[in-house]
Amino acid sequence: MSDPDRVLLCYCTCPNPASAQHLAETLVRESLAACVNRIAGIQSTYRWKGEVTSDSEELLLIKTTAGQFEALKERLLAVHPYELPELIAVPVERGHAAYLEWVRAAGGD
Amino acid sequence: MSDPDRVLLCYCTCPNPASAQHLAETLVRESLAACVNRIAGIQSTYRWKGEVTSDSEELLLIKTTAGQFEALKERLLAVHPYELPELIAVPVERGHAAYLEWVRAAGGD
Amino acid sequence: MSDPDRVLLCYCTCPNPASAQHLAETLVRESLAACVNRIAGIQSTYRWKGEVTSDSEELLLIKTTAGQFEALKERLLAVHPYELPELIAVPVERGHAAYLEWVRAAGGD
Repeated sequence: MSDPDRVLLCYCTCPNPASAQHLAETLVRESLAACVNRIAGIQSTYRWKGEVTSDSEELLLIKTTAGQFEALKERLLAVHPYELPELIAVPVERGHAAYLEWVRAAGGD
Repeated sequence: MSDPDRVLLCYCTCPNPASAQHLAETLVRESLAACVNRIAGIQSTYRWKGEVTSDSEELLLIKTTAGQFEALKERLLAVHPYELPELIAVPVERGHAAYLEWVRAAGGD
Repeated sequence: MSDPDRVLLCYCTCPNPASAQHLAETLVRESLAACVNRIAGIQSTYRWKGEVTSDSEELLLIKTTAGQFEALKERLLAVHPYELPELIAVPVERGHAAYLEWVRAAGGD
């Protein structure tokens, strides 16, 4: 559908620091992502079984490419503790060319 | 302009935890957003009346659809304490299909 | 390539609060960005010289326009302490019209 070299910025929430750090390290170690930023202490509000609920979570910002996305998704779904994990990807339209190249190269090992 | 089922990731800053949590709960309760993540303790820098200014804020990440966006915007502008609230939306290009379906279904009640 | 008035949301990581705040103030003072949000205390995981590494960083969310992006990039690369700074930009597809106008006007001084 899109150029496999296109860089994507993916968002994924995790229930706690340990699961978030484990997922970040797994994706980088297996060359499915170039870099993952972990934001601690977020508060998430959503509706679950009809009730508005709030929970503490951590948010991961995952830098990868369109060509790696399907493999990353499969791995994330296998490792993630939630029944229905959030994984959404937004397109990177511009950037520092050398950084974008670094992201692309990180998936190539 | 775009497919009403397209998922959007919206960003909105709020002045403090109470206003951010109130806005998050309002949007989810009224089925205008599927999920809102609240990031506390951000520092925002901008120019106001000619001076460079920095303030503490909270940041909301709001998951909704293109079809819900106009109604969400109207409600957010009515509830938000700022004269000129930030509300920007970036397109979600890919994701975990079951999660995207959950976002779409949350707006359908 | 794209409309110069298009609003972009840029992401850039910095090694510490001082460098992040300095960069935020520089970009706003020089009218290269309308607003910068600084998220403290993030943990970044990446591969460097073959090893999976984690570091504390700060994340900047920079609101600018496509027409300002090249000048912002040049200035950011000159000021940033890293050899290979992250700078990626995602397109803003929708938003509160008055806020988008404010972002565009901030680059026009």
